[in-house]
Formats: sequence, structure tokens, C-alpha cells
Amino acid sequence: MFFASDNWAGAHSKVAERLLAASNGFASAYGTSELDQRVEAKFAEVFEREVAVFFVATGTAANSLSLASVQKPGGISFCHNEAHVAEDECGAPDFFSGARLATVEGALGKIDPKALATKIARFPQDAVHHGRAAAVTITQATEIGTVYSLDEIDAIASITKANGLPLHMDGARFANALVALGATPAEMTWKRGIDILSFGGTKNGCWCAEAIVFFDPEKAKEMHFIRKRAAQLFSKSRFIAAQFDGYFQDGLWLDLARHSNGMADRLRAGIEKTNSAHLAWPTVSNEVFTIIPKSSARTAEDKGAKFYEWPIPESQPDLVGSDETLIRLVTSFATTEADVANFLACLA
Amino acid sequence: MFFASDNWAGAHSKVAERLLAASNGFASAYGTSELDQRVEAKFAEVFEREVAVFFVATGTAANSLSLASVQKPGGISFCHNEAHVAEDECGAPDFFSGARLATVEGALGKIDPKALATKIARFPQDAVHHGRAAAVTITQATEIGTVYSLDEIDAIASITKANGLPLHMDGARFANALVALGATPAEMTWKRGIDILSFGGTKNGCWCAEAIVFFDPEKAKEMHFIRKRAAQLFSKSRFIAAQFDGYFQDGLWLDLARHSNGMADRLRAGIEKTNSAHLAWPTVSNEVFTIIPKSSARTAEDKGAKFYEWPIPESQPDLVGSDETLIRLVTSFATTEADVANFLACLA
Amino acid sequence: MFFASDNWAGAHSKVAERLLAASNGFASAYGTSELDQRVEAKFAEVFEREVAVFFVATGTAANSLSLASVQKPGGISFCHNEAHVAEDECGAPDFFSGARLATVEGALGKIDPKALATKIARFPQDAVHHGRAAAVTITQATEIGTVYSLDEIDAIASITKANGLPLHMDGARFANALVALGATPAEMTWKRGIDILSFGGTKNGCWCAEAIVFFDPEKAKEMHFIRKRAAQLFSKSRFIAAQFDGYFQDGLWLDLARHSNGMADRLRAGIEKTNSAHLAWPTVSNEVFTIIPKSSARTAEDKGAKFYEWPIPESQPDLVGSDETLIRLVTSFATTEADVANFLACLA
Amino acid sequence: MFFASDNWAGAHSKVAERLLAASNGFASAYGTSELDQRVEAKFAEVFEREVAVFFVATGTAANSLSLASVQKPGGISFCHNEAHVAEDECGAPDFFSGARLATVEGALGKIDPKALATKIARFPQDAVHHGRAAAVTITQATEIGTVYSLDEIDAIASITKANGLPLHMDGARFANALVALGATPAEMTWKRGIDILSFGGTKNGCWCAEAIVFFDPEKAKEMHFIRKRAAQLFSKSRFIAAQFDGYFQDGLWLDLARHSNGMADRLRAGIEKTNSAHLAWPTVSNEVFTIIPKSSARTAEDKGAKFYEWPIPESQPDLVGSDETLIRLVTSFATTEADVANFLACLA
Repeated sequence: MFFASDNWAGAHSKVAERLLAASNGFASAYGTSELDQRVEAKFAEVFEREVAVFFVATGTAANSLSLASVQKPGGISFCHNEAHVAEDECGAPDFFSGARLATVEGALGKIDPKALATKIARFPQDAVHHGRAAAVTITQATEIGTVYSLDEIDAIASITKANGLPLHMDGARFANALVALGATPAEMTWKRGIDILSFGGTKNGCWCAEAIVFFDPEKAKEMHFIRKRAAQLFSKSRFIAAQFDGYFQDGLWLDLARHSNGMADRLRAGIEKTNSAHLAWPTVSNEVFTIIPKSSARTAEDKGAKFYEWPIPESQPDLVGSDETLIRLVTSFATTEADVANFLACLA
Repeated sequence: MFFASDNWAGAHSKVAERLLAASNGFASAYGTSELDQRVEAKFAEVFEREVAVFFVATGTAANSLSLASVQKPGGISFCHNEAHVAEDECGAPDFFSGARLATVEGALGKIDPKALATKIARFPQDAVHHGRAAAVTITQATEIGTVYSLDEIDAIASITKANGLPLHMDGARFANALVALGATPAEMTWKRGIDILSFGGTKNGCWCAEAIVFFDPEKAKEMHFIRKRAAQLFSKSRFIAAQFDGYFQDGLWLDLARHSNGMADRLRAGIEKTNSAHLAWPTVSNEVFTIIPKSSARTAEDKGAKFYEWPIPESQPDLVGSDETLIRLVTSFATTEADVANFLACLA
Repeated sequence: MFFASDNWAGAHSKVAERLLAASNGFASAYGTSELDQRVEAKFAEVFEREVAVFFVATGTAANSLSLASVQKPGGISFCHNEAHVAEDECGAPDFFSGARLATVEGALGKIDPKALATKIARFPQDAVHHGRAAAVTITQATEIGTVYSLDEIDAIASITKANGLPLHMDGARFANALVALGATPAEMTWKRGIDILSFGGTKNGCWCAEAIVFFDPEKAKEMHFIRKRAAQLFSKSRFIAAQFDGYFQDGLWLDLARHSNGMADRLRAGIEKTNSAHLAWPTVSNEVFTIIPKSSARTAEDKGAKFYEWPIPESQPDLVGSDETLIRLVTSFATTEADVANFLACLA
Repeated sequence: MFFASDNWAGAHSKVAERLLAASNGFASAYGTSELDQRVEAKFAEVFEREVAVFFVATGTAANSLSLASVQKPGGISFCHNEAHVAEDECGAPDFFSGARLATVEGALGKIDPKALATKIARFPQDAVHHGRAAAVTITQATEIGTVYSLDEIDAIASITKANGLPLHMDGARFANALVALGATPAEMTWKRGIDILSFGGTKNGCWCAEAIVFFDPEKAKEMHFIRKRAAQLFSKSRFIAAQFDGYFQDGLWLDLARHSNGMADRLRAGIEKTNSAHLAWPTVSNEVFTIIPKSSARTAEDKGAKFYEWPIPESQPDLVGSDETLIRLVTSFATTEADVANFLACLA
């Protein structure tokens, strides 16, 4: 009953085996090997267009360096007020990009387009004192388990385009969002106006596989230096490539995300059937936020369940009763039907 | 005949298998798992004292964050003028630490203690205009295959102590230096006055395993924030821990370094026997710098040998004749006796 | 009728003459001259305790370097959401300090102590992902013309002390606040728990005279390097010292602030008497925020009045009627009774 | 007998009076006043072409922000190894630009063109590990009192052009160099290929007047943000403008430099006539480096002379005998013939 985070899971066996298979022999370093190049071509295939791909060590690196690549002195990057870049990366996006983050409100973890437009308007390109808009970043799936619809991404992109700003997507849970929408990678990104993507593999069955994807390779040239200066250029880069190779093989990555989302569906369905617990808000990816009696939380923990109690959102101070608690449940490729059933039994 | 770099080798089978074994099951993230803690204790055992250990993605990260942890505004970090931090890290040490590097001369890739003392004296602690000394970093084994003797480290450390400066060791090839000296890890580090160590596993049989080691854990507290802000905190940290676990098991790391150095010994011995080639300077670790006829270099390449031609050191402009070239040969855990024999045959 | 900003005024004649008098002769550079030292002693006298004083070029520099001197990796500095450091300094505080700003709500331009305590609690000292509290900064007088009472400063200081955080005061309009409260400099700063002060002279009759004041000189040692590295160490530092010398002479600085506040009092009184205009909120320093008919604004401009229309505060969207506008009027040492009378006549 | 530095002198009376005259009345802030614009036009006249001008507080700011405006991740700025940016600015150029400095040798304080070309060649535009060339900066007059001839600037500029690199001139003593060469401002700058100039007025009779001059205004757009973020945008900018207004009036700036250089000529001539002292190397601007008996140095100091003893250049370890010392004498607009005569008398 490990629902603490999808990064508590290990590596899927097919990824692990592909990595093991790549461990022998010699290959040129720093991303120049044949395998690196083959996997880069795989990315182009997955996204149905030429892309520039940069492997990095962590999702924080992918987000921070993406934003750094579009920075300006006095620049402002806009994100949702619960976004990972704002809340959970220790200031890394600011540190690497020199661009401050400004947060934008929005229901269900998603930037409200009107609020975004209003906020961007406060930072025009000649605002030497206030600072000027530099980029927008959205998270897909969001930090609270919801997913931007294609139309919702369009709405954001139309604002960034109107303002001449690049649009970045934090795709730490890209695959979970993709299968939730039933869209193709292209449909959810560059066809919507995404310019740069943090493509995460780690949470969905890899050990450590994160990539920055530029949909306009012309704009990626500085990234070679930005990444190296950020100490994110792996010497044995092929070991990241190998993971992605296994990840993409025969659509494994989508299968894993489907499994993970499916386990979350089971959780959601089970919770809706109980009298004691109820969903805090609707989610469609592999995160489930649930309000349960404190006693049930203790029971579940006693039986070995792992999960985090979650802070009550500032915008919903009355969400939770005095003898209740808000918990986050995250499923992964490694979650089993038995895990779900056992957890639901704790709530009964 | 892959002699281009030790980072062209893959992973040793025992490291790969240990990693595979760790791929199943759930474990808490961000370095808090039981395996992370066990491996941290292993470091304490290896170094015969309590240490604080921080896994990072690359050697550049280990060096840069180590220097960042002892930075001061206007600070200067001193290194050898051929050091990796100065020559091959794209300014990352400066970027992360805000401390400039000042280079110091010295024969055979090693800082000359007198030159160091003279240079430090130019940057006293009240030198607001010049800047002030902040740290010293040495590379063990050096960039050109030599190794500081224990006495030579003592000589450097006595200067840093006299000046109240922390001493860092870039140990990207720590194990190779260790077995070349026949010293213990403790003897080559904190017993000599090393304060912080970049402990490299990647070049010696891991996929990606680098650690920052503080010999005074009290001084390591800021590193938690420095590392996270630098986007170097792995979520599935256990996959680094697992590699080190295999690496340390039954002294594997020392065996691999002994093998690697031994292959270099064979190269050195073979070259000394030829008439056509000769060693550029004496080395004892797994790097061999050799002056060979350009025609031999072409022959070797035609037969599939991989190696880099090396820039002529500024201090030795006449090192190489007009029809000769200087090449660097690096051996690794994966180098075979046959590789060495085949290469030597190219020189005959 | 120049009410656009107090930085539109020139220099008071006594400051200008003192500067002229100091223009002859030779003096040692970089803050070491006899005059520099005499003025530093004057600061100690004014504040009734030993202080460390650092002249800088701008208020932005004073604020940014103050916050930089107490920075930590992953640090957060807390300020009011309308603070100058957050709104009008192009990210300089973040740039120099490496610490992000987090904004706190509060009525009338002043941080609400409860909101501050709540916000700080979200960033404890071990919050590697979120970041950790590093400092608090308040503005006295505030950006919207109000002034923290001594008790209100106490309330903020008790929170910073309880959390072990340094407390900075942005005193760009320090003198205006001081005479509004009728307090001594000591009473409004270190006796309340202020650790570092940006002491502004420019807006109150100097040309360019800003100082960072540390109330604990032991904590000021790094500032020598921070300032020089920030390109803020004047060679002919005495020309700043001379301005402060004239500024402090016979209490000139307080007289100027009294005059400036007095002119604002006249504006406030006159506006309260009119039927057509009314004060947007109560202020006591040299800033007056007024809601006037748009037609009156045009009339005043036609007659040569200079002032800024001000954005409607997000928290008070209905503050202003559809044919009204919110304007900011700033008085200075150079504002005359006639200026005030003429402006009020435009509203009649 | 104040020969310590030209920044020990105060302000010339005509500059001081112009500043006094500008102290009355109101003017718009942050560089938008009529006077600011008039002085900007004066710069265009002086340089015989449209320019973009940015006032800043210090020469260090001018240099650092100039280099920051042409920075790249992993960038290297090349300067002479005795340059002010490398030796005396506490790392500010690196801090603001994120570009490391690499020093180049050259006789008499001037970059050797061949050495520059060689060094640049080590940092090509695709050198992700080493870093890449970003800019070149020369100092005119140099730190040791010499001056690049127009041909010598051409030689440097032809290298920067061939490499596609911007060329910056540190003109802290621009006027002294100009009158030494008898060239026009245009001839010594953009007609030679200078792209950006740090134009210093402080050392030559202003209190505080430094400007960054872009010869291609199109490339200056980012500087508005770079300067503000660097806390270098003066609110009462007109007080800098006023100084430059007086400085340029009727060629005052050139007269002052001629006087200053002339006093240095007298020193040089006087020293060459003595038996006891001799010039360390030939200089033509307002700095004179002299080798004198230690006893003469003590005598001069006893009589009130102020000067700095200078470190022996590393390249000329035998420059000075055991009972001699190397001193630097700097003249200024305020140096008198009597000062010179009195100093020379100390050597007799």
C-alpha cells in the first residue's frame, strides 16, 4: 500500500533490463553515442517532428534549465500558484534563470487564462521597474492530479502567443496526462503551442530519465552550454538513453501510465462508494486527493499504508471537518489491485 | 582498443546487477531510504570516520557544489592551471560558487606549494578590491595521470591550514590514485587535511555515481539546500546508492582500479620497449600520455583504436617533433590485455 | 505643482552648498577619508549606538545588498505585497541575494503580523523543497504613505525574533516616517528590533545619498565585499559623506521631512474640505492618495500639475467610481504652500 | 603632493558649479529629464554618431554591465592580465556577466594581439566543456600608464571582428589617453572597432560621472533592464547629467586631461634628470611609475607626499634593486607645478 509518491516505486523490469543490456561495451561519452542518437530520433518519432532533446538528472533541472533558456534580465516567468516550480524546487528555477516567478490563480490547479492575461499585462516589455514578462509554464498533469484539456492548453497558448512569450510544459507526469486525455504527444504539445517540454520518465517507471524537448531546434543552441554549466551533462549519457529506449519500446510508457491511472480510477471508484470518505476534488491522472476520518488514516497507517497528509488549500479553508484529514494517494506502474483493495478496506 | 576515456566504458557487471536487484519494490525518495542510509554508513566505514555524503549527478556537480559550500563574496578558489574545474567544466564552479578560480602553476599537473603560497598571499582576507582567498582544490589523480604523494598533499594542506582555507579534492579518479599510492582512503584524505572530497564512481565502473563527502559533517548542513537548489537531488536516490553498494562490495572498487592501473602499466611498459614511441611524462594511474609518430596514430585509428590527440602543454612547446603527435590513452575496468597488446602492435 | 514624486525635487541648498564646499582638496578614496569617518560617527550619534555604515548609489542597492548580506541558499525574504522591493526594483533583491521574495498581505500597506507568522511557518529551516525563511523586510514609511506605529514594528519584530530571522527596514522615506511618529531614530529602529536599515537621503533633499546601516557592526563584515562586488563602492565616497554631513547638520533632515509632511497635511486638509475629491485612505507621511473626478485630473494637468494616476489596488476593486480616478500626490522639501493652494484650486 | 590616485582629487570648480546650478527646481526622474536628454545628445556630438548612453555609479559598474550585456552561458571575456576588471573589481565583472575572465599577456600593460588570437582559438563557439569566447576588453589608458596607439587598437579589433566578438574599452582614463594620442573620441573608439565604451569622468574632475556608451544603439536595449536590476539606475539622474554637462562645456574635459598629463610630463622629465631615480617603463598618460631609493620614498613621505608603492611585476622580478622601491605617481586636474617641483626636490 505505497501511495506516498510515484517516485517511491523502483524501475519497471523492461526499463531495468534495457539498462542492463546497455551496460556492456564502449560508447562515446557526453551524449554522442549511437544509442543517444537513436533515442533522440525516437523522440522525433514520438512527437512527429524534428526536436532537440537534452537529458538531465532531475525534473527540477528540466524545468529550471528550460526557463533559463528563455530568460531576460528583469524577466518574470508565470506559473500556477501551486506549481512545482514555485513550491517544491527550492528556488532552482529562479537560481538558474535569473527570472522571478509570478504565480497566477486558477481552479483545480490550472492557470486561469483571464488571470494570466491580467497578470502578464502588468509586466509589459518596457517595464524597467516592475520587470517584464518572459515565459509561461504550465504543469501537465497538475500538482493536484487534474489535467488541462486540449482546449484549455489552447486558451493559455493563445495568450502567450499574443504576448510573444514562450510556453513551457512541466511534464513530470506527461504520460499520465496523455493517456487521461487520449491525445497524442504532438496534440498535447506543439500542436497546442508548447515551445519547450520537460519530459519526465522517472515517475513512470524509469530510474532517472528526464529530458528537455525543444520543438524548435533552432532555439535549443544555447542549451548545450546552459546544461553543461549547470553540471547536468552526463558523461555516460547512454544510460539515460537506454532507459528511454526501453520506455518507448512497444508503447511501454503509455501502458505504464494507463496502468497507473487505472489504479487511481479504482481508488476513486472505491472511495466514492464508501460512506466515510470522499474525493476532495475530481482528478483523472494518477493522483487522488481524499478526505477521510483521522481514525481511518491511523488505521491505514497501522496496516502499513504509506501516504502523505496534505495541507488544506488556502482557497478552501473549510474543505475538511475537524475529525477529518486530507490525504494524497499516488499510484504508479507498480501499484497492484491488491494494494488498492487493501487500502479501501481500511476506509470501510 | 577503446582508450579515449574511462567514461566510454559501461558499467561493471556487479554494479549493474546490484542496480537491477534494487529496481523492485518501493522505497522512500530523496535520499531517505534504508538503502541510502546503509550506503552512507558504508562511506563512514570506508573513510574510518563519520562523514556526510551527498549524491549528485556528475563530477562537475560534485566539484562545483563543494566549492559553492565554502564560498564568500569576492572569493577566489585556487586550482592547478590544467585542473578539470578550470578547463573542462564550462564555468560551472564559478557559476555555482560565485567564487572565481585562480590557477597555480606546478610540474606534472600538481600544484607547486610555493607558487600556491605566493598566490594566496596576493588575496588576503581584507582585499576588498583584489578579492580574497576562499578555498584550494587539488585533483587526485591529476588530469595528466600523475598522483600527489601523501607528502605532497601534506605540503598543500599545511598551506591551506596556515591560511585558514578549506581544502577540496577532486577525486574523479580517486580509486586509481588510491591504489597507485597503496594508501587507505583515510590516509589520502582527512588524515592529510582534506575537508571535502568529490568521490567519483562513474569513471571506475559505475553508470552514474558521484558523491560529495564532508569529513566534518557539521559543515555540511548548507549542502542540503545548495544541492536541491542546484537541481541535483535525485528523487529515486536509491539508484545511486545501489551502485555504490555494489561498488564497495568486497572491495570491488579497488579491484577495478587495480585492473585499470595495471592495464596502463602494461601500456607504459610496452611503449618504453618500442623505438618509435615514448612516454611524454611519467604517470602512475590509468592515463598514459605518449608521443608517437603521426603515421602510427593513423595506423592505430585505421585498426579501430580510439584515443584523443592532446594539446601540447604551453610549458613544453618543444615536446613533440614535427612528424609526431601527443596522444592520451586511458584505460578502464573494461580494458583487456588483448586491447593493450593490439595497440602496442600498432606502434611496432 | 510637482507632485509626481519626491525624487523630482533637486537638492536642498544646504546640502548642495556642503557638497560644493567639499569639492576642493584631496582626500583618500573608497570611504577612508576623514570626512567619511566623521559622517560615520555622526550616524552613530544619530542612532545612539555604534553602527556600521555603507554608502551606496541607490535605494535599490541599499535594499538588495541588505537582503544579500543575510541570504541563504533556498532562502525566502518576506515583504508586503506592495513593497518596493517586490514591485519596483526589477528583481534586484533576488538577483543580489539569491533569496526569493514571498509577499504577505496586510491592510494599508503594512504587513499583517498574523499573516506573516503563518507564511513564515510554511518555510521552516529544514524545508529543502519549499525553501526556508531567511529575512523579513518592512517599508517605513510604506509605499502608500502610511507608517508603522512603534507597536506595529514591535509586533513584526517579535515574530522575526521568535523565528530567528533578521529584520530589515527599507527607509527610503525614513525621515518622513520619523517625524510623523515623533520618535527618535533609535526608537524606530534597533530599539524595536530592526537589524539592518536602508537609510535614504535622496528623496528628502540630497542628490544621491543612501546608506546601509547595521546596528550590529559584527554582522557587517561581509558587506565590504558584497558592496564592492556589486559595483557600489564609490571612489570619491566623500561626496556622499558631504551630503549626509549637510543633511544631519542642525537637524536639517528632520526639518525637511517636517516641511514635506506638513505640505501633505495641507493637501489632506484641503481635500477633506472639498466636495469633489476624497482621500483614498488615511496617510500621515508625504504621500497623499486621492480619488478625484477625471475632469479635475485633466484640469489640474492642463494647469501644469504633475502627478501619477495610480493602479486600483487588487483588494479594493470598487474603490473608484467610473468617472473618477485614483491619483498619488507626493510632497517634498521643495513643495510650497502656493503649490498646494494652486492644486486644491483645481479641485474646487 | 598628492600622487596616490586621481580619485583623491575632488571636483573641478566648473563641474561643481554646474552641479550646484542644477540643484534647483523639479525634473522628471530616472534619466528622462530634459537635461539628461540634452547631455545624451552631447555624447552623440562628442562621438560624431548616434550613441546610447547609460549613466552608472562607478567604473566597476560600467565595465561589469558592459560585459554583462554581451554575455553567453559558458562565455569567456578576455582582458590583459593586469587589467582593472581582473585585478581590482572583486569579481564584479564575473558576478554581473556570468562570463569568466581569461587573461592575456602583453608588454607594457597592453594585450599582445598574437597572444589574444591564440587564446581565443582555445575557446571556439562550440566548446561546451572549455567554454567559448564572448568578448574582449582593453583598457585605455592602461593600468600602468601606457596608451594603445590607434594601430594597436586596430590590431586588437581585427581579431575580435574575425572571431565575431564584441570589443569593449575600459575608459576610466579615456580623456588622458585621448589627449596623449591627439586623436578624436571617434577615432579612438568606433572608427577603430570599439563596440562598447566605459566612459569615465570621475578620475578627471567629476565627483561621480561614469557612462556606458553603445556605438550601436540597437544593441543597447537590454541595458535598461541590466542596469536597473544591477541597482545602478539613479532616480535623480540629472545630477550625473549636470556633471557631464559641465565636463564637456568648452572642452573642459580635454583641458583637464591635458593639464593632468602635462604634470606627469613634468614628473617624467624631472625624474629623468635625477641620478637617484629612474622611470620603470615609459608612460604617456597621467601615471608615472618610478624606481627610487627607499630612503627617498621615506623622505618624500615625511614631507607629506602621498603615493603607493607598487608590486613588482611578475614578469620583471629584477626590476628593482634591494634598496630601491617601485612607486606609482598619479597626477590629476588638481596637481600643481609646485606639487611636482616639491616632489622632485625630495629625490634630489
